Amino acid sequence: MYQLPKSIDNLATRLAQLPGVGPKTASRLAFYLVTNMHIDTTGLAAAIADLRSSLTYCDECHNLTEDNPCVVCTDENRDRTKLCVVEEPMDVLALERAGFNGLYHVLGGQISPLEGIGPADLQIESLARRVSEHPEIAEVIVATNPDVEGEATASYLVKLLSMYDRSITRLARGLPMGGDLEYADELTLLRALEGRNQLVS
Amino acid sequence: MYQLPKSIDNLATRLAQLPGVGPKTASRLAFYLVTNMHIDTTGLAAAIADLRSSLTYCDECHNLTEDNPCVVCTDENRDRTKLCVVEEPMDVLALERAGFNGLYHVLGGQISPLEGIGPADLQIESLARRVSEHPEIAEVIVATNPDVEGEATASYLVKLLSMYDRSITRLARGLPMGGDLEYADELTLLRALEGRNQLVS
Repeated sequence: MYQLPKSIDNLATRLAQLPGVGPKTASRLAFYLVTNMHIDTTGLAAAIADLRSSLTYCDECHNLTEDNPCVVCTDENRDRTKLCVVEEPMDVLALERAGFNGLYHVLGGQISPLEGIGPADLQIESLARRVSEHPEIAEVIVATNPDVEGEATASYLVKLLSMYDRSITRLARGLPMGGDLEYADELTLLRALEGRNQLVS
Repeated sequence: MYQLPKSIDNLATRLAQLPGVGPKTASRLAFYLVTNMHIDTTGLAAAIADLRSSLTYCDECHNLTEDNPCVVCTDENRDRTKLCVVEEPMDVLALERAGFNGLYHVLGGQISPLEGIGPADLQIESLARRVSEHPEIAEVIVATNPDVEGEATASYLVKLLSMYDRSITRLARGLPMGGDLEYADELTLLRALEGRNQLVS
């Protein structure tokens, strides 16, 4: 039977390792790269090859950065009384879009016993040290994901950080904006009820 | 506001040019490539960089290939009486999976006046020449896509090839296997009715 040309097959196999890319999408992307000359494959290849060498983790907040410490940690105009703890670098971007102007601490994942990831594998010790060394941090906002591991990670952090006598908060759980009550799952609706806000007292 | 590190932003911009990859997926993929060390980014970059240089189009069938003429055109065991005309190299792979054992002719697209693609931009002249020069081709199977442009391309080919006195067929249109009649669109159902097969006469 006819096989894919080796160079396409090789690329497709590699692309299929990426999240959300199945074998069919991978071959389609590989063919697309061959036949669509407006895509600069040389530039794309260089961008991938140079990716890791140009990046490092910020010693302060452990976000991915090109400068160490990163632009957020060195920015004098940010609110240094608020420290937002997130799982991944992508989460920082999401919170920036939402307008958060404090500092971040990137854990590098979530506590997940099933995957063998414990507190020691994450930037949790450095978080405790950072909080203890910086008395100006008045509030630690725990912004781990609202899933089982994220909640467990949040509980762990709350227990650990409670000794430092700072305000510890958690992002609100509730109905997503633009959502429809009818389609909300039970747990989200339960959280929305529990966290209901008083409009008139 | 915090910006993505330049190298991630550069890669994400390039990835977002690919079909089915939006800006968010692109940044996610870029971050994934940085942080997941089991992905060989050097190998991936090399696979992309080498892609075009190692591939050419078969002079006979115009499929993408590493050897010219390609392995299908040179395979002595294939049925040379059947020539299947497809739009893209990916279509060849799909037909191979379905068990087709004849030869192919890859047009390189479909006739689309809206996008300024006419018959001269496709491998149509070479198809006519191939059919005229190879009397062993008894049947031309037109396997362009069942969409507006694919149907128009099929009509054009039928008109053009009818002078050569060969059997010209078109892939059946009808209900997809595993599909549900209730959810079939009207046009598909109409085609399925028109193309109904006699079980008992």
